Amino acid sequence: MNIIEIIDKKRLGNELTYDELNYAFLGYLNKRHEDYQMSSLLMAILINGMTKEETINLTDIFIKSGDIYDLSKVSDKIVDKHSTGGIGDTTTLVVGPIVAALGCYMAKISGRGLGITGGTIDKLESIPKFNVNLNKKEFINNLRNVGFVDCSQTKRLVPLDKIIYNLRNNSGTTESIPLIASSIMSKKIASGANIILIDIKVGSGALIKTKKDAKLLSSWMKEIGKKYNKKVITIISDMNVPLSNSIGNALEVEEAINVLKGSKGRLYEASKEIASLLISMAKNITVEEASELVDEVIKNGKAYKKFIQFVKAQNGDLSKLKIDAKIKVIKSEKTGVLKNIDALKIGQLALKLGAGKINDRETIDYSAGIKLYKEINDKVKKGDILATLYTNKNIKLSNEDVNCFDIK
Amino acid sequence: MNIIEIIDKKRLGNELTYDELNYAFLGYLNKRHEDYQMSSLLMAILINGMTKEETINLTDIFIKSGDIYDLSKVSDKIVDKHSTGGIGDTTTLVVGPIVAALGCYMAKISGRGLGITGGTIDKLESIPKFNVNLNKKEFINNLRNVGFVDCSQTKRLVPLDKIIYNLRNNSGTTESIPLIASSIMSKKIASGANIILIDIKVGSGALIKTKKDAKLLSSWMKEIGKKYNKKVITIISDMNVPLSNSIGNALEVEEAINVLKGSKGRLYEASKEIASLLISMAKNITVEEASELVDEVIKNGKAYKKFIQFVKAQNGDLSKLKIDAKIKVIKSEKTGVLKNIDALKIGQLALKLGAGKINDRETIDYSAGIKLYKEINDKVKKGDILATLYTNKNIKLSNEDVNCFDIK
Repeated sequence: MNIIEIIDKKRLGNELTYDELNYAFLGYLNKRHEDYQMSSLLMAILINGMTKEETINLTDIFIKSGDIYDLSKVSDKIVDKHSTGGIGDTTTLVVGPIVAALGCYMAKISGRGLGITGGTIDKLESIPKFNVNLNKKEFINNLRNVGFVDCSQTKRLVPLDKIIYNLRNNSGTTESIPLIASSIMSKKIASGANIILIDIKVGSGALIKTKKDAKLLSSWMKEIGKKYNKKVITIISDMNVPLSNSIGNALEVEEAINVLKGSKGRLYEASKEIASLLISMAKNITVEEASELVDEVIKNGKAYKKFIQFVKAQNGDLSKLKIDAKIKVIKSEKTGVLKNIDALKIGQLALKLGAGKINDRETIDYSAGIKLYKEINDKVKKGDILATLYTNKNIKLSNEDVNCFDIK
Repeated sequence: MNIIEIIDKKRLGNELTYDELNYAFLGYLNKRHEDYQMSSLLMAILINGMTKEETINLTDIFIKSGDIYDLSKVSDKIVDKHSTGGIGDTTTLVVGPIVAALGCYMAKISGRGLGITGGTIDKLESIPKFNVNLNKKEFINNLRNVGFVDCSQTKRLVPLDKIIYNLRNNSGTTESIPLIASSIMSKKIASGANIILIDIKVGSGALIKTKKDAKLLSSWMKEIGKKYNKKVITIISDMNVPLSNSIGNALEVEEAINVLKGSKGRLYEASKEIASLLISMAKNITVEEASELVDEVIKNGKAYKKFIQFVKAQNGDLSKLKIDAKIKVIKSEKTGVLKNIDALKIGQLALKLGAGKINDRETIDYSAGIKLYKEINDKVKKGDILATLYTNKNIKLSNEDVNCFDIK
């Protein structure tokens, strides 16, 4: 067996065996093959695809490349959720406390943002002193004590995914459905949950461009889950409108808190849907029953209290959450109805304000971002405030930059 | 413009512009992009192909990456030949002296062998003291004085091809017709000839697997030639039978000398075909007339004398050509007719004996190789000698190793 033969086989569109995938991918982790050999193989996989068998096998190789968390001593019904990326998607910070407030467990490993899509780890780090680096023991302890834990991927959890993810980002090979499925599912399975919800975002600005691809990704993730005796629920949702009225790290933490305190709106709706699905599976009740429970723990303050407990357990200091003074108010130039808020443009604008970064050499300004004030289908009068922009950067905004609102 | 966007465009099967190809390839030569980005792009090119426009543009970028030899002061009819690889293909060492003996000029840059296919530079280096490293001035001087010059690719001649060729070899991206066309033609054009013959070898063991691919490669090479006002002749030939009765570096030099002295056989036939085509173009005569001239300079000894002059001009010492004692005679185990000699198996056997190498860490034993004693369709009696094997290695040969002869 040699790496060139394996690359050749995939280039010609043939199915690779478990041993061949293992030789190629684990060999890469062990530095037996070169970056340029792996990127060449990844491109062949991206163009020619992988079968379900190959995808399941590759996921297994990913999982076995590092630590596997056994959370069965905490509970046999541990939930987890993952979103393939969205603008203003802060659902994790709302769903986690709700789930824990209802006596269930949510064990989550989150990522950082790159490009216009924010990462939950960045949002948590906008809370001063918040510790996102937990080892296996701390992770399990916090899960048992709080019911909700969220930290960054350690070096020992699916290390193969980490290097492949990085190489994919830098070699133009990100958009492979089987590779996305393996990457996400290997982390979810290795980190120990057995009820897994995947929110697949579809849109021109998202990783998944079409509904067809989203359905394919969904079916493959379910197949992988079946193999490991995990329940996998998928939601396919549009990424056309920002998921919440706040975009930016500290601003999104603030909005999650507001939702946990009872605020309504898009973030509340999205979080309630996810939480209800997870609770219904964990408690073996209907989604409608679960939905009532979700509203109950928001109303009685238990979900908010759980959030406070979660932040404290990871050393965060909410009293010092910093939001910069606004620099610019965007007012409507006409009267009409708000037909759309372009999520992609809002993401790009937030990036420009400093809320995100496009490579690892840049740093994120946690306090930068955008607040939105109107819902879709709201009537808007000329002069109404549509958004406020927060930034520490000295930037000039063009009409194109602030052209995110479709009013008719 | 950025490299990921260019990789994406080709991955989706779109045509790259001159500027995009230049940004990607010249940028790679100038170390602006990483190996793993270029190999990913090469794989996308290999699978999705390139248009004629792209191939011609890429060839231009290759050519302009280094020196371009202007040989017009020597002659306006300078010939060159290239073979895409064959077992026992020593035609260059026969054709060059014939062409020069007839008052024409052959200016050739040759390569080294890798795998079962020998390279002319290795063959020349089997002649003690032979200098394969000529600079531009020495190259032109030898061409003018001798009429035939053959040396190794300098660092300044098509440097882009050198690094791309190396990366293709190591990343499983060799078998792209447009990339093969660009690689070969850029070197032929940059080294100054204006009548170029390309011998495309087809076979399961060759770089080009099918007649269809060979025809495609042929048509693209002609298109590229047209663009630069070069006459391009192509021959498509099978690689199923070794091209000469000697395989191995010094053994092939010895056989080339024998053919120049009047020996007949497959190497004579192949060399005569190539030389006749080149001479007919250079002298504006028919191929038949050229063919008679070829036989004439062999008979009157001028071609052999030219070979001696060529070797001396590059400091070689033919008196010290070393051929090791034979170690094994392969005899026929049955009586019948020799139906086939398997070129691929002969190549693999020669490699095992030390005549070639599979990577740059190995060294070639110039005196190792194989001599064949029967022609296709010869009657063979049980006990007849089919081949003698030359090696300095202490190796054991299996039945499989010496199973190259089909006798029925």
